[in-house]
Amino acid sequence: MIQEKYRECIEACLACMNACNYCYVSSLKEYELAMLRECIRLDRECADICAFAAEALSRNTLFALEISALCAKACDACAEECEKHSHDHCRQCAEACRRCADACRQMIGAA
Amino acid sequence: MIQEKYRECIEACLACMNACNYCYVSSLKEYELAMLRECIRLDRECADICAFAAEALSRNTLFALEISALCAKACDACAEECEKHSHDHCRQCAEACRRCADACRQMIGAA
Amino acid sequence: MIQEKYRECIEACLACMNACNYCYVSSLKEYELAMLRECIRLDRECADICAFAAEALSRNTLFALEISALCAKACDACAEECEKHSHDHCRQCAEACRRCADACRQMIGAA
Amino acid sequence: MIQEKYRECIEACLACMNACNYCYVSSLKEYELAMLRECIRLDRECADICAFAAEALSRNTLFALEISALCAKACDACAEECEKHSHDHCRQCAEACRRCADACRQMIGAA
Repeated sequence: MIQEKYRECIEACLACMNACNYCYVSSLKEYELAMLRECIRLDRECADICAFAAEALSRNTLFALEISALCAKACDACAEECEKHSHDHCRQCAEACRRCADACRQMIGAA
Repeated sequence: MIQEKYRECIEACLACMNACNYCYVSSLKEYELAMLRECIRLDRECADICAFAAEALSRNTLFALEISALCAKACDACAEECEKHSHDHCRQCAEACRRCADACRQMIGAA
Repeated sequence: MIQEKYRECIEACLACMNACNYCYVSSLKEYELAMLRECIRLDRECADICAFAAEALSRNTLFALEISALCAKACDACAEECEKHSHDHCRQCAEACRRCADACRQMIGAA
Repeated sequence: MIQEKYRECIEACLACMNACNYCYVSSLKEYELAMLRECIRLDRECADICAFAAEALSRNTLFALEISALCAKACDACAEECEKHSHDHCRQCAEACRRCADACRQMIGAA
């Protein structure tokens, strides 16, 4: 019930979407909001790209390599930003982003 | 790293998205295509609605009840159609749809 | 090249998506950020729902009424929030939301 | 109320999304369905990528170049497939795809 060749990558994208959206919601509630502008923006950006990538891979898109490369790039950018902050949600988000970027690159390498 | 109150519902939506898209791709390859018109259409419809619902719940949407009710309705319709066909991908898709509709309704009931 | 019966509603949804995302980006840059938390959250929410509604209507979704009702509700909520703020982007967003909510309700009424 | 620098590209993406989805719905109703398998698949693929690109550009995505390049590639592929068929919906879809691919490439060139 899933595109087997993309299973790991799809699951990493969906875990990353969840972590980014959790970080987005949590960041919007933080007291010190101004320093989180870029974090909020990148959380949404990365969540939306991961969600798009997961659905595209699950429909066996013809553009799997391009979409995974885009996703890896968004994950790198979001991880880099979140690593600047000490909130738990930022740290967990950065970890999910790094794992997803790795999964995307492994999938591209195996293609 | 996930909206805990929606965890089961998000996971059911994502499993259903995968099953619907797998059924969609597989149906488009079947020899007897004409009898699968509605199945193809509903697979895409349901996959897109499940993907949307999962991301909305993961960002703690203000419209969780409306979106889950929409998702349950789409899942019911897709399950009903897939249950008319004997292909493995249709049968598995129908099961994922029924589980997702249940998870959505449970979440609504608990709200 | 468009579902004629939904043309006005699709166009209002897309205009609203653009206005909400413009308000979202602009709000994240404002000096007084804390008072815009709800505005940012609702801008994204409404933009994502409008984008989803427009694509669903353009594929002649079976769930046009439910999706348009959801969209109208999100537009109302976003307009109500944006009307609390005096920024140009908030005022323009509120207007686009009101127009989109009207277009959705007109479409529902005509169905 | 719109990212001015991306206005033409966003509008071309949304017109292409509508044309692709119209062709998708119309193709699924054609009597000779089997010859349209690839057309149906590419219509959905291209519609979903155009919708994603339009929303990403409207939120001033950091990945405008990558996303526009992906969109141009999907539009080329869909146009190429639709040009094989003589249905009005295929011909109109191919034209919208060519226009969108051009708009994406112009935007990339101007960046």
